[in-house]
Amino acid sequence: MDTLRQRSGAKAERGDIRWHAAQSIQRCRELAAITDVPGQTMRTFLSPAMRSAMTRLQSWMEAAGCAVSIDAAGNLRGLYAAVTDDAPLLLIGSHLDTVPDAGAFDGVLGVMIALSLLEMLRGERLRYAIELIAFSEEEGVRFRVPFIGSSALVGRVDHDLLSVADSEGITVREAICSFGLDPEMMGKASVVDRAAAYLEFHIEQGPVLESEDLSLGIVEAIAGQTRGEVRFIGSANHAGTTPMYLRRDAVAGMAEWIVAVEGKARATKGLVATVGWVSAAPGAGNVVAGEARASLDLRHAEDPVRFTAVNELLEKAQSIAARRGLRTEWQPQMEQRAVAMDARLTLMVETAVCETGAAPLRMTSGAGHDAMILAERVPSAMIFLRSPGGVSHHPRETVREEDVANALAAGLAFLKLFDTTRDAHA
Amino acid sequence: MDTLRQRSGAKAERGDIRWHAAQSIQRCRELAAITDVPGQTMRTFLSPAMRSAMTRLQSWMEAAGCAVSIDAAGNLRGLYAAVTDDAPLLLIGSHLDTVPDAGAFDGVLGVMIALSLLEMLRGERLRYAIELIAFSEEEGVRFRVPFIGSSALVGRVDHDLLSVADSEGITVREAICSFGLDPEMMGKASVVDRAAAYLEFHIEQGPVLESEDLSLGIVEAIAGQTRGEVRFIGSANHAGTTPMYLRRDAVAGMAEWIVAVEGKARATKGLVATVGWVSAAPGAGNVVAGEARASLDLRHAEDPVRFTAVNELLEKAQSIAARRGLRTEWQPQMEQRAVAMDARLTLMVETAVCETGAAPLRMTSGAGHDAMILAERVPSAMIFLRSPGGVSHHPRETVREEDVANALAAGLAFLKLFDTTRDAHA
Repeated sequence: MDTLRQRSGAKAERGDIRWHAAQSIQRCRELAAITDVPGQTMRTFLSPAMRSAMTRLQSWMEAAGCAVSIDAAGNLRGLYAAVTDDAPLLLIGSHLDTVPDAGAFDGVLGVMIALSLLEMLRGERLRYAIELIAFSEEEGVRFRVPFIGSSALVGRVDHDLLSVADSEGITVREAICSFGLDPEMMGKASVVDRAAAYLEFHIEQGPVLESEDLSLGIVEAIAGQTRGEVRFIGSANHAGTTPMYLRRDAVAGMAEWIVAVEGKARATKGLVATVGWVSAAPGAGNVVAGEARASLDLRHAEDPVRFTAVNELLEKAQSIAARRGLRTEWQPQMEQRAVAMDARLTLMVETAVCETGAAPLRMTSGAGHDAMILAERVPSAMIFLRSPGGVSHHPRETVREEDVANALAAGLAFLKLFDTTRDAHA
Repeated sequence: MDTLRQRSGAKAERGDIRWHAAQSIQRCRELAAITDVPGQTMRTFLSPAMRSAMTRLQSWMEAAGCAVSIDAAGNLRGLYAAVTDDAPLLLIGSHLDTVPDAGAFDGVLGVMIALSLLEMLRGERLRYAIELIAFSEEEGVRFRVPFIGSSALVGRVDHDLLSVADSEGITVREAICSFGLDPEMMGKASVVDRAAAYLEFHIEQGPVLESEDLSLGIVEAIAGQTRGEVRFIGSANHAGTTPMYLRRDAVAGMAEWIVAVEGKARATKGLVATVGWVSAAPGAGNVVAGEARASLDLRHAEDPVRFTAVNELLEKAQSIAARRGLRTEWQPQMEQRAVAMDARLTLMVETAVCETGAAPLRMTSGAGHDAMILAERVPSAMIFLRSPGGVSHHPRETVREEDVANALAAGLAFLKLFDTTRDAHA
């Protein structure tokens, strides 16, 4: 039997990798049929479909040589032991839960890629252990609280969370108990004392890799976010009898500001700014609007850039309003810091991707991921796979087999590099 | 007793006029208390409150020397006879119905001014007859069809209208019958064979006269209107993962267009253009909008100017959309021609206003009025009274006593001029 060192990198057997890539995709499709809502894919935190999916996955993990357990937060964890008991621990994973009417690949593909990597080791023991983690909760659908699974892994036990109820009045505590788990053991799920690193594969959920004709992206940071709502307040007037020069038109002011929001984002590298919903009051075609409201969603990998942009845009809203005899109000709704991936681990991922022959593209993730939570306490890295059409959170979400194969090749190369690094630091 | 010629114009007794102005306002307030909805002012076509208001008004009209009747369209009509039976006929009037939660002056004040003018004649018979008309329906509240009263006066008998039902399922025909009138006699309400002219006093319902510090405006035309909805169709995308240069953002395209709409109206004399409501779909703050919709209301006194502006703005929508990878759809909802007031009669009104010492301001009415319907068949003119704060269709709607006095003085001057003109044409 070849060792990892012989099979990985440029020497890897591409046919074998292609076979595993096809199997990863096939397994994603198979799990997509395990759903809480017939006719669509939907699996939420500790739901009946989640239990079925975990049972299926557990058998695959055991066949790959893992010792499988479920922690108190419902994460399915498979430990692939090292040659020694006190070896370092590498975590690889992503989430098993989905949004309503989901695609087959968001989260699940990262778990299947991790599983295929373990299978490709063919039982060979390395000088570090690998724990495959299928997170129980990332999307925040059932309890409107995201990242329940990964938060438990970094030892964040939020006792208020246990009392949060779903739409049927069942609390997190009750959900955990009825699943046969013990909510008091949540603290034991933490890996922060043992894990040396965390690696996550995930579909991009955006169009950048496709537009660059690339398979894989290397995530440098998860963007920080500011979300809120801007209100423009003017004066409602008759659309026929109020001449233009006597208007205090809230919609016109808002429109001018939306153009400025877009202009600012276009002019600032890496900044995305979105006005996704708008409204006007009283909201009749023949009445000049006395009030208009617009959402603002602003993201950037560097918090100072984001803060500057938010301040500039709020000042812009005020100056537009002042010139028009309007006033503005800003209602902040969300403020989330940017999270950098670990620089050393990211460089290792980049090297691994290069060794597969794929061109590396460093990028920012505009969406949150489990790696964002793990990064608080464990050096973390992330690899994106191209999302055809940029489609995600939709049944048409898909992935190319060649991209999964490249991800597996990069994963094998990473496992080799991680081992080498361990040598150097031993 | 002084004759009209002696009392009108510069020689009019201002104290007498002020007394009548105060009485006109007092009567408007009195009628405002006669309502179908306790706690607010609301009188709709042939409603119980309308009957009470007509009964009250009828007694005032009779006291002023009118022969009062109700035509088949429910208009209350008071004929103030001339010295001879075959004399020409001047119509003066406005409407008695209101919007929901109305003010006291929209429509009603025009009727009260006409009544005061007749009262100030103190029984003196002129060489032309005057018919005071209190229109039964102008606002279109009960049957969602406006101008029912004035349409009947120009002989427009729409048999489909008779079958239109209100929110309780009562048809126009049934409403007319239960009021004790005969819908088959609607055709007899027409005045087109007998009327030489129509004059209407109305509050401006806008801020122009106030901003110019003027009492009275002379309406040259009722603006034509185009109303419709523009849809911008792009592509819904994740607000975090879709970089600016890969977006097809419907809201951003709409915003750019709204700015252009305002710019076009500001740059075109007399044009008003309004986007009064907007919407975005899917309408989440963290999703780039795939569709955005905006109303358009565009008005001008000259139809060719309006047509050119509408075409330019729809072309602008298309060019903005094309540059952004969007497409547009235009859904027209209303198209109403501009209606010019009679040039000779308007000059006479302007002369009358000048004779009172008030500065005349010729203006366009951006809202529809009974005079717009009458003008189809009868030479018509309109005088606007200043609307403090531009407020209308609201309980805070008001009018200044000095402006009503100026309107009465101008009305008396007009009656004298109209008589003189009749002399010249006799």
